[in-house]
Amino acid sequence: MLVLGIDPGTAVTGYGVVRGERLGAATLVECGVIRTRAREQLAVRLKEIYDGVSELIQTHRPDALAVEDVFYAHNVRTTVVLGHARGVILLAGQQAGIEIMEYPPAEIKKTVVGNGAATKTQVQFMLMRLLRLKSVPTPSDAADGVAAALTCLMSSRAPALAAHALAARRAIPVVRTQPAKPLA
Amino acid sequence: MLVLGIDPGTAVTGYGVVRGERLGAATLVECGVIRTRAREQLAVRLKEIYDGVSELIQTHRPDALAVEDVFYAHNVRTTVVLGHARGVILLAGQQAGIEIMEYPPAEIKKTVVGNGAATKTQVQFMLMRLLRLKSVPTPSDAADGVAAALTCLMSSRAPALAAHALAARRAIPVVRTQPAKPLA
Repeated sequence: MLVLGIDPGTAVTGYGVVRGERLGAATLVECGVIRTRAREQLAVRLKEIYDGVSELIQTHRPDALAVEDVFYAHNVRTTVVLGHARGVILLAGQQAGIEIMEYPPAEIKKTVVGNGAATKTQVQFMLMRLLRLKSVPTPSDAADGVAAALTCLMSSRAPALAAHALAARRAIPVVRTQPAKPLA
Repeated sequence: MLVLGIDPGTAVTGYGVVRGERLGAATLVECGVIRTRAREQLAVRLKEIYDGVSELIQTHRPDALAVEDVFYAHNVRTTVVLGHARGVILLAGQQAGIEIMEYPPAEIKKTVVGNGAATKTQVQFMLMRLLRLKSVPTPSDAADGVAAALTCLMSSRAPALAAHALAARRAIPVVRTQPAKPLA
């Protein structure tokens, strides 16, 4: 099963393509970001995001699209503009006819780390463990996209991947090289 | 100049197609609503809105798309979901390569009625005057779409239409058959 995970943003949209094997191992296929130009009109930026996501879907033909849900920022305007970006991302998935899953930030942390209030560093550490990576996916928006994709795999294939995650989780050290920050 | 005006909504998206003649008269070409099914997943509803707006653009080939800006509801969640709908509407306009104008509700009222705090009834009365209609466009979401289109015409063709609007405005009676309500 191949999942395209997306962390929506008007300026930077992170994505990760993760393949889950039957035996419970998950592999990172690709990750990165779609950047839009801040000077452009909102409609132009939305088209750039839509085109980027559509291209990823065409290239990888994922079975599911996992989209991080809105992070309710203090600034309502920011959250509403983010809603616009999510709108065109969900549209791209719907047009491709693939399954769409939406996960609130806390659910992603809970699934990947086992704690809904996990720090960004803890999430990144678990991504490295679960996907056997030598370094953290960068930039952090790309890592957030990978985490969304992994959440989808770990939820839908509970028996296999849950055991895998549990084994890795047991080995997790207390990672606090950075102060706790919200995911988005 | 032909303008497609849109009042975005996840359940009901109102629209109005208005043609502005050189002499300052504006004509209503068509108005109506795009309804989505409440039971459907958000992504499905967004595709219905996108398909509806894209079809209107293909049919009428408007010169501009006038989209009402977000009404900040008490419920932030509602406003954010509305942002998703606006996102796919702006995308449809951008893909068609037409000019996109966004107007806050108060600017639409100010332009059409001359008062940013005008009631829904006053806006509807002015629509009838300015477009020489025998009845108010219904449902009210369609009327809001027409008002957005008219705002675009009255702003861009200020000299001609402003005089026209002024003449009609002078004749406006105090319309208070309904208590004052917000537009959205």
